[in-house]
Order: sequence, then structure tokens, then C-alpha cells
Amino acid sequence: MRPSGRKLDQLRAVSIETNTSLHAEGSCLIRMGNTHVICTATIEDKTPPFLKNTGLGWVTAEYGMLPRATTSRTRREAAAGKQGGRTQEIQRLIGRALRAGIDRSALGERQIVIDCDVIQADGGTRCASITGGWVALRLAVNKLLKAGIITSDPLIDNVAAVSCGIYAGQPVLDLDYPEDSVAGTDGNFVLTGSRRLIEVQMSAEGSTFTRDQMASLLDLAEKGIAELVHTQNTAVG
Amino acid sequence: MRPSGRKLDQLRAVSIETNTSLHAEGSCLIRMGNTHVICTATIEDKTPPFLKNTGLGWVTAEYGMLPRATTSRTRREAAAGKQGGRTQEIQRLIGRALRAGIDRSALGERQIVIDCDVIQADGGTRCASITGGWVALRLAVNKLLKAGIITSDPLIDNVAAVSCGIYAGQPVLDLDYPEDSVAGTDGNFVLTGSRRLIEVQMSAEGSTFTRDQMASLLDLAEKGIAELVHTQNTAVG
Amino acid sequence: MRPSGRKLDQLRAVSIETNTSLHAEGSCLIRMGNTHVICTATIEDKTPPFLKNTGLGWVTAEYGMLPRATTSRTRREAAAGKQGGRTQEIQRLIGRALRAGIDRSALGERQIVIDCDVIQADGGTRCASITGGWVALRLAVNKLLKAGIITSDPLIDNVAAVSCGIYAGQPVLDLDYPEDSVAGTDGNFVLTGSRRLIEVQMSAEGSTFTRDQMASLLDLAEKGIAELVHTQNTAVG
Amino acid sequence: MRPSGRKLDQLRAVSIETNTSLHAEGSCLIRMGNTHVICTATIEDKTPPFLKNTGLGWVTAEYGMLPRATTSRTRREAAAGKQGGRTQEIQRLIGRALRAGIDRSALGERQIVIDCDVIQADGGTRCASITGGWVALRLAVNKLLKAGIITSDPLIDNVAAVSCGIYAGQPVLDLDYPEDSVAGTDGNFVLTGSRRLIEVQMSAEGSTFTRDQMASLLDLAEKGIAELVHTQNTAVG
Amino acid sequence: MRPSGRKLDQLRAVSIETNTSLHAEGSCLIRMGNTHVICTATIEDKTPPFLKNTGLGWVTAEYGMLPRATTSRTRREAAAGKQGGRTQEIQRLIGRALRAGIDRSALGERQIVIDCDVIQADGGTRCASITGGWVALRLAVNKLLKAGIITSDPLIDNVAAVSCGIYAGQPVLDLDYPEDSVAGTDGNFVLTGSRRLIEVQMSAEGSTFTRDQMASLLDLAEKGIAELVHTQNTAVG
Amino acid sequence: MRPSGRKLDQLRAVSIETNTSLHAEGSCLIRMGNTHVICTATIEDKTPPFLKNTGLGWVTAEYGMLPRATTSRTRREAAAGKQGGRTQEIQRLIGRALRAGIDRSALGERQIVIDCDVIQADGGTRCASITGGWVALRLAVNKLLKAGIITSDPLIDNVAAVSCGIYAGQPVLDLDYPEDSVAGTDGNFVLTGSRRLIEVQMSAEGSTFTRDQMASLLDLAEKGIAELVHTQNTAVG
Repeated sequence: MRPSGRKLDQLRAVSIETNTSLHAEGSCLIRMGNTHVICTATIEDKTPPFLKNTGLGWVTAEYGMLPRATTSRTRREAAAGKQGGRTQEIQRLIGRALRAGIDRSALGERQIVIDCDVIQADGGTRCASITGGWVALRLAVNKLLKAGIITSDPLIDNVAAVSCGIYAGQPVLDLDYPEDSVAGTDGNFVLTGSRRLIEVQMSAEGSTFTRDQMASLLDLAEKGIAELVHTQNTAVG
Repeated sequence: MRPSGRKLDQLRAVSIETNTSLHAEGSCLIRMGNTHVICTATIEDKTPPFLKNTGLGWVTAEYGMLPRATTSRTRREAAAGKQGGRTQEIQRLIGRALRAGIDRSALGERQIVIDCDVIQADGGTRCASITGGWVALRLAVNKLLKAGIITSDPLIDNVAAVSCGIYAGQPVLDLDYPEDSVAGTDGNFVLTGSRRLIEVQMSAEGSTFTRDQMASLLDLAEKGIAELVHTQNTAVG
Repeated sequence: MRPSGRKLDQLRAVSIETNTSLHAEGSCLIRMGNTHVICTATIEDKTPPFLKNTGLGWVTAEYGMLPRATTSRTRREAAAGKQGGRTQEIQRLIGRALRAGIDRSALGERQIVIDCDVIQADGGTRCASITGGWVALRLAVNKLLKAGIITSDPLIDNVAAVSCGIYAGQPVLDLDYPEDSVAGTDGNFVLTGSRRLIEVQMSAEGSTFTRDQMASLLDLAEKGIAELVHTQNTAVG
Repeated sequence: MRPSGRKLDQLRAVSIETNTSLHAEGSCLIRMGNTHVICTATIEDKTPPFLKNTGLGWVTAEYGMLPRATTSRTRREAAAGKQGGRTQEIQRLIGRALRAGIDRSALGERQIVIDCDVIQADGGTRCASITGGWVALRLAVNKLLKAGIITSDPLIDNVAAVSCGIYAGQPVLDLDYPEDSVAGTDGNFVLTGSRRLIEVQMSAEGSTFTRDQMASLLDLAEKGIAELVHTQNTAVG
Repeated sequence: MRPSGRKLDQLRAVSIETNTSLHAEGSCLIRMGNTHVICTATIEDKTPPFLKNTGLGWVTAEYGMLPRATTSRTRREAAAGKQGGRTQEIQRLIGRALRAGIDRSALGERQIVIDCDVIQADGGTRCASITGGWVALRLAVNKLLKAGIITSDPLIDNVAAVSCGIYAGQPVLDLDYPEDSVAGTDGNFVLTGSRRLIEVQMSAEGSTFTRDQMASLLDLAEKGIAELVHTQNTAVG
Repeated sequence: MRPSGRKLDQLRAVSIETNTSLHAEGSCLIRMGNTHVICTATIEDKTPPFLKNTGLGWVTAEYGMLPRATTSRTRREAAAGKQGGRTQEIQRLIGRALRAGIDRSALGERQIVIDCDVIQADGGTRCASITGGWVALRLAVNKLLKAGIITSDPLIDNVAAVSCGIYAGQPVLDLDYPEDSVAGTDGNFVLTGSRRLIEVQMSAEGSTFTRDQMASLLDLAEKGIAELVHTQNTAVG
């Protein structure tokens, strides 16, 4: 029934290749089917001004998309002179999600910037960015621990994300673009490794939904996240 | 227990004053406690380019805040030269929420722009904007119906929104700013008059949450929305 | 003869409601007929860099207009990405006018920002902003005096403004939009409570004018300002 | 008494060199003492959209200043990414002033753009721009008349401008920068060749002023404008 | 002598992987040592306005760099709100270089946009972009030919580029970042497959150079380009 | 054969008028035929941040063009809100070229900003800017030397620039606009007074070129530069 032939509760093929960047403190290339995102982590010795002298660290994220990551070419935001509303919404979500999995006191007064750049898009780029972004963050934090710069691990738990939606009347896991573009309702779910909720965003796109449907999607999300967390853990070794 | 002395499931004092604008096709001033928002609806005879010749209409929203709507002065976005990420996220939400309550075919090829301008802020400005925005929309659509420009009502149901969150370990309805600024988890819920869900956005701010907590917040939201819908209906007569 | 039925030397109905903002140090809502402006004053403990260590204070202003304050919707400047020339011209005028009524040494090294936001426009918004802006300034300065932060009153005199113009060949006081849009000549006059001149801006819009006409408009302005100053004083108590 | 040794009612040395540009339809270099402005007129076959099919023409102006036209280097507006408020205010004034001297119906549906670029500044740049801008406009219009593109002269009268102010307690004509920077009151006066008023802009900079002082400055302006109009007429032959 | 141990006239390891993008009409990932660039070609049915009705086509390019392509993180241009001078200079060069290898009449009135996005940088990114950009262009044009949309091949010859410079007093081929950052003189050379010159850009960075040195660098460039052209031809089959 | 009647190796009439600015530390007006550029030098006591505490100075340049310097009016960059790619490319070239002729250690930790503003354009504006920019720089440095602020001359040699190109199949010196707009190949050459090379930029515009043609253009450039250096030296006395 799904355009890809997948089962209702089946993720796309997922792979996470680590250390793909020569320069970054942490990096990976995550592939969720045809959605490919490069995630890098940069450690900076300064924090945003509002954290000055609090002893707390920060994690923030930026998101971008290559112009031809999409079916037809999307205008380059640097040429347009600003980041669009969608970009800002996504990068705020990634930062918020990753911060929920971190003990900012253990990180100390430093900032880690997660850059998520979509080199190919087929739906679910914000979720792939969170899942891959956590891997880049994990690797960068490992470097800090190994160098003795910090002594206790600030990462409380894995953070991963997946989208689910009502496609052709059925709840399905991990929407790809052909599904996403026609889904009546879709949601993004960010969970920890121990299945606690970090972020739930559900939207009616053209039709409203019920509490029961919401529960079904959340069930699917829990299943998908468990698999993604396993992939994350395998990738970081 | 709440700073305002309200009960856990108690909304702030709500009022909706209609026809507050001399010029707009629909307008109101909504007050949710100390949060005050001017909402206006403008009918335009054109739609966005992607709807050209589809027979479908569009509802979009813009959001702003007076510089001194806030405790300390916020920099004017027009002076800063761009709308911030938060503003864009909110106005995209308002537009999406209101579109979910409309039959775009019955509206015909025209656009209604909802402007929501916060003149005083005390938490929950995006929810007040949606609830008040729907009233402005309702009044503008009434004008189209009365003038015979459209013949069937494109508004399927009321659309209203409320925030809920975990404050001091307890689920509470309709967070004001003192609550919102320390809540561990908070959510925005957009529902129809018949309690179908349009948008659910829950975020862990500093702590994760469970499915049970999510359900409690949704229960509170349903109660609050019922009261808001009643206030909307009284206001539009 | 005037569209509104007013006499040639008659102001529109004026009202100034004070303390309309929960947060601002001074605030009012001024109504000159259908022109409604929210004015707030924000006290800041810093001055512009060029006043560093001079012991002198500063008053500056910003001006904005809600998109649907006008007959047809005006594009939001924050969305356009810049303040237009008209906006900048007006806010420079408001700041200059209010500074002329202040002893900057008595104010001390602090800045007061006056925000004037037009929520409904029917001509004369810049003049209403100056008249209302002075009230917000007066209230904020009162707060400084009451708190003993400053000891001598920096406000030398009232500052108020009114527009006059040649409408249908006749000098008239306080142009509303229907008059303003066809006036051959119009002027904005800023005076003190003791009728000294602060700013005179007269423009030929389509026809030139004479010194005699200029004198007639100034006569009208003096009459109108006297009434506005009375309203200001009543409002601030 | 004046820093330059000039008499109270004495203009600076004025010269207007015409046809200084190889490419423009009209051009001049105006020198008012050490203030030097290049003015060019460009004829365009289109008008702003709001004049479409009205048969009326338009004159508009843009103003700029070379970075080192000033005592210390001023940041290039193109590098800053926007025209400042002062620039916009000045170019709006120049356009408005020149339009007041033109029969827009005789001009026909075309636009003339006047560019005023200050290559050296010593006070009074906006007035020099208007006086020189009119010369560029006159030469461009002459070209249209000579080519038979228009048949009746749209220029009704000369337009010229001069600044006057209260310097060291005395009304003086044509302020240079040392005077302008300390003047308590200053004004810009735009008049026609037959001494009708187009624009009067008087500002209290630090001290208020009286109607009598205003009259004295206007007397000086009338004297100065007469001389400037003579120089204009000599320049255009 | 070279940090990498390469011979003076030795290129870095070069590879060009084609069809790396699911969506683009032509694409490759070019690796010149640690410099990695994704190049995509997008065919558009419209040309820039100045080519309207000329029967001529256009090739243009845009260039970008992921924030952490560099040793330390570079600010994202989309967040900064504009493309920097270096970016604009490079993308103008890429476009100009590729246009020199194309018969614009044979291409017909369409535009091909080449996007070059550096995912990892180690010197020579503009040259890699040109060499890889030509491959993406070749593949896109092949698609047009195969589909019968154009009938004669608009690509006259290969276009490839390499940098050379004086490093430690010696002319060397294909500078990497450690060499580039200290080279006294460096140049970028764009040649065709038949070794005709398209673009020569030589700069003294800290020391001037002679005609003889220029000739030596050009000799090296010719050798390197021959190898790059061979790699291009192998890649496109 | 040339539109201007010049010989193949003949420069346009060149003149350099010095001290044209009342305010700048160094200034000139350079005329190369109908290309006229005002060049000013501003001495600043600060350097860019990356030179802090290095003891080294900096020379940078900005470039602009009056809107009607060109045959048809060019949009003002300040109004457009950004400097175009061509402007940025040119001003980077001017700065780089002038820095190559300076001993930055002898200059000490200060910056000299060279502003080059084209008031009339007829081809070769970037070359005229470099040649005139060096004169402004020379005069500003002379002032530093005379005042004893620096004691050894940081200017190593003259820096001058000229364009050459293949016009109608022939190598010609100093292209004017009619030649430049149709030249198949053109180049800009920056040399020192002792004929060492600083910058060579050759581009195929529509046709490729050979090493022999490149050598011919360089021969012409050397001849032209010798004459320009002579003119520079005469101008600075």
C-alpha cells in the first residue's frame, strides 16, 4: 500500500557513517532512505551572553539544504539574503531537542554547534537531522571526555526523532516525500533512548485528527525510535 | 499554588471585543488576562501564485509585538531588518491552524490575511492570536456571505487554542508568563469546536515528559477550549 | 464645508488615556478622532555612545503602524525587512521634538525611548505621536522623580503638535485623512506649552503657498496646541 | 562675527558648471563654498505604477555622499546595506521640492530621476542639491523640448533652496558646517523664482524659537534665493 | 619538500564520482585530495531577461561552503544575510569559465545552473568546482541530447582548472591549504581540453613576481589540466 | 582601426589632479579619457582585528559608481541594499594590489582606506582606481612621514594598472568602453614601477586565447604602465 512497498510500521533503510569530516570535532552522514544529511559538531569555548558566569553550557543548531537537494531547485538562502521561516523553525527544533538530552552543568561553559546540511531530501529531513545531530554531538563530547576537558558525561540519554502520519487513512511510520506530500495529518516525535518524550508536533494538514489517531502515531514512533537508537549506538561504537 | 491564585484547570479572565478597527473587514481585541492582542482580517481578491486557477482560497497570518508589550523593551523587528525565528514560527502556526478550519473551495479564489499584533504580553500570545484570529476571520467571512460574494459558509467549525504545562509538578491550564518561564514542559493545543485536534505542540523545556502527562495536559486543553469557543460564539453573536 | 462638519478652527475629539501599559514606565493611548496611537516610554540606563561621560541624557523615538491601521492593508515593515523613508522621517521628528522640551543635563546619563504605534490611522499620526509621546515621557520622568533617581525635573515645558493645511482654499486646523489627501499645502507644527516654536514643516503638495497663508496656519496651530496642552495636563493630573 | 568672515546676509561663493556628465540628459556641478554636489538628470520612459495611464509625469530624486566628503570618513551606505534615515529624508525632500515646480501633465507619462551626489560637504548639502537638481532638470527638459518629444514647457518656475539659522544669537544666511553644527535653530527654505514658498522646515536644535525669528530667517531666505535663481538662470543660458 | 610529500608537478589524488544526486539533471562529487565538492546541474526552461528572444542559452553558477568545511567553523552565509565578496567572486568565475566552453546557440534558450557546494575544504575549492562543474554540465547536456531536446552538442571542449603557486621559492602544482596559506604568489588557471586559455588569475600575495615565474606556473598548469581532463573523460564515460 | 582613432599601443589622455578633497589625507581625480575617478585616502588609527598587536598595518579599498556614471542609469547600490558581486570583486582587487606595494611593517599598526568613486565611466574603471588610488595613498603616506608619525617610507614602489585586450583580432592597449564591450579576450595588469607583476587577470569573453596572445598583451601592459608611473610621479611631485 505504501509507494515504497514498506510495511506500515517499517522504517526506511537507515545508515550512519561517522567521522566523515576532516575538520569537525564530531561528524556523520546519516541516510534515511534517500534523505541524506551531513551533521557536524563544533566545540566553541564561549557560550551565548545570557549564560556568562553561570557554569552552564549550550547546544545550538543550524540547518541548511543544498539548492538541488530537492526535486526542483530551491533558491539558495544565502543568495536570497535570509533564512526562511521553515529553516528557522527546524533549526530551533533541533537545538531544543538536543538540549533536552544534555546536562548543561556537566558540559560546562562551552557551546557545541550542530550543523545539519541536507545534501539530498526525500522527506523527514528534520528528524534525520536530530538523529544524526545527536551522533555528531556524542562524538564531540567523547573527544572532550577523552581529553579530560570535562570529567562527567553530559549526555543523559540518546535523542532521536522520527515522523509518522496518517497516509491513505492508515497510521504509517517514517514518511517519505511521496507520503508526506499527501498525508492528512503528520507528526514529528523526538524521544530519548528510554522512550521519554522530548517533543511532539502534530499538525492537521487538510483534515483534523483524534486522540486515538494520535496514540497510534505515538506507538509507531516508539517502535521506530527504538530502532534508530540502536543504529546510533552501533555507529558510535 | 499558582502565582495568580487560579485553580489548576482555570482559564484567565477572557474577553473578546469585536469590530475594534474602523478599516478592517473583521477585527477584535482579545484579552486573556494581561495578554492583549489586536486581530484584524483583510480580504484580498488575489491568492498566492500556487493557487492560481484552482478555485481554492487561502488564509495566512502575520504576527507582531509592540516593543514594550514585554517586561523589558524588545527590539522592534522592523528596525532590526527582519522577523525573528520565533515570530515566523508563530505566524506559520496561526495560518496553518486557521486553514484547518476552513473549506478553501467554499472560500473561492481569495485570500484572507489575519494580522495578530500583541499590544501587551503575559504568556500565551500565540494561543490568544489563534482564538482571536478566528473571530476576526469569522466576521470577515460573515461580510462576504452577507454581500452575497460567497454563498456557502467556508468556516467548518470554531478554531481555538490554549497552552497547558507542567508547573511545579502539576498539570495546569492556560500558563501565564510567570508560570511559562519556569514550566518544565509546555504545550500548545489547537482544537475545533467539536474537540477534534488541529495542532499539538509539546516541548520538554529542561525535563522530558511521559505519555500520561501528555494525556493530562490534553484533558485540560479540552476543558479550556470549550470555554474559549463559548466566548468566541458569544462575541460574534 | 469640512467633510467631518467641523469648524475651520476645530480640533477633532481628543482623549488621552494614561497608564495603558502594564510594563512601560510611562504610557498612554491618544485618540485624535479616528487616529489612535499607543505611546510608551522605556527608561534605559545607557545612552548612545556619543554621550558617554557627558552627563547628558537622551530621548529617542520609534514609530510604527499596524498593517491594518490604514484603509487598505499596508505591508508590515518587519516583513519587508526595513523601515520605509516615511517611518524614519517621522520617528526622527518625534525624537527631535521631544528633546527640544527637555533639559538633558537634569535627565542625567540615561535614555528614554518613546515608542509610538499607530493602531488606527485617519491623518495626523505624527502629530498625535508627539502629543501622546510627551505624556508617556512625562509619566516616566515622574517615576524617576518620585523614586529620587533624579532630583530636578528635566521637562521644561509641554510639547504638543498639530497639523494644519489649506483645504478647499481655506486654512483649517487638524486635518483628517479625507482633508489631508487633497490639501494643496499642509504643515506640521510643534510648539511648547508657552507657544514657542520647536518645529515647523510646511510643504506645498501640488501648489505653492504664501507667507500670509503660512501665518494663518500658524495662528490655527497656536489655538489647537493650547487645547492639546490642556488635555495633556488634565491627563497627567 | 561669522567664522568665514561673511556678512549676516551673504551667501557663500556659488558656481554652477553645466553639462559635466558625458552620459546624463542634464547635469551640473554646483559649488556653494566648499559644498560641492554633482547633479544629474535621467529621463525614463516609464512612471511609477500609481501613475499608469494618468497622463501625468513624475520627478524623483536620490541623494548620496562620497564616504570622504566629510571631515572624518562616513561609512558607505552601500556597504552598510541600507540608506540611512537622514539620506531618505533628504531625497524625499528634493523630489517633493522639484515636483512642486513642474506641470506634471505637460511632462507626460515619463519620469525624470535627479541624482544628487555630494563629493564634498561643508553644510547645506540638501539645499545645494535642490538648487543644482533644478538646473539638471531644466537641461533635461530642454532636451525633450528641443527633440519635440514634449511641446509645452512643464517647468513652471525656478526652484531653489537655502538654509538660514540663528547663529550666536543672530539670523544668518546660508549656514556653513561650523555654523550649522552649533546653530540653536536652523531652517531650510525652498522657494520658487517668484518667491512663492514650496517648503519650510525649521527645527529647534537645543533651543526653541519665536515667530519673529522665523520671519527674520524667511527674509534672509528670500534674499538668498533671489541670488541663487539668478545664478541658475545664468548657468542654463 | 612539500608538506604532503608530493612532487612539485604532482596533482593530489583526484576522483570524480558521477550521478551522486537523485534529483539533479547532472551531478558529481569531485575529490581533489581533501577538498570535496558536490556539483549539480539544473536545467531551466528560461534564460536571464537580457537573452529573451536571442536564441542563446546561458550557464551560471552558485558556490557555497558548509560551515564546518573549514578548519574552524565559518559563519553560514544564509545566517549572515548575504554572500560574501569571496563567494561572489568565485561563483562569477565558475560561470564565466564554463560559458567559455559552450556554444550558447546550440544550447538554445535555456539556462543551466551549476551549484558547487564545498563539503570539505583543503585549498583549491574554486578550481575543483570548475572541473567538477563541467562534469555535471556534461551529464546534463547529455540528457538533453538523448531526449532529442537539442540536436547538436553545445559543449565545444572540456573545461578544467588548477591552481599553481610559488611555494618556498619553487613553482608547485595544485596547492593544498598548508601551501596556499603561505605561498608568495598564486594563480588559478582555467584551460580547455586542447590547452587553450580561458582564465588566468595570478596574484602576488606578499611578494611580486616575474614573467618567467608566470611561465613556469603556466607550464605546470598545462600538465595538471591534461590529467584532470583525462579524469573528467573517464568519469563521464 | 580603433573607434577612438588611437594607435594599438596608445593610452588614452591621462591626467591626475591632486588634493581635490578638502578633508581627505590624500586625494586625486584621475582621468583616463572619459573615465573619471575620485580617489581619497583616509588614515585610521586602528587595524582589522586579525592584525591586533602584530605591528603591521593594512590598506583596504572601497569602490563605488555614481548612478549616472554609465550610459544608462545604474541602480544605486545603497538603494538596492547591497554591493553587487562586481563591486566587491573590484574593491578586493584594488586593496590587494595596493597592499603588494607596501611594507606593512613600516606603516605600523594603522589602516589606510582608499575610496575610489567613479563619477564617469568609459571602460577601465578598476585600473584607473588602482593607478589613482596609489597617488592618494602616496600623498597620505607623505603626510605621515612629514608629521614624523612614521619614519621610514612604507611605499616600496609605484603601483599602476592598465587593461589590454584582443579587439578585432588585434592586441590593443587601454580598452575604452566601445572596445571593452566587444573584445573577445581582455585582461587587467597591475605592475610596479620596476615592472614586476602584482596581478594578472585575463578572461576569455566568448573566445579562448593562446599563450602568445597573452604575451602580446603583457608587452602592451608594460609599455602603458611605464607611462602611467611617469604620470603618477609628476602628479605627486
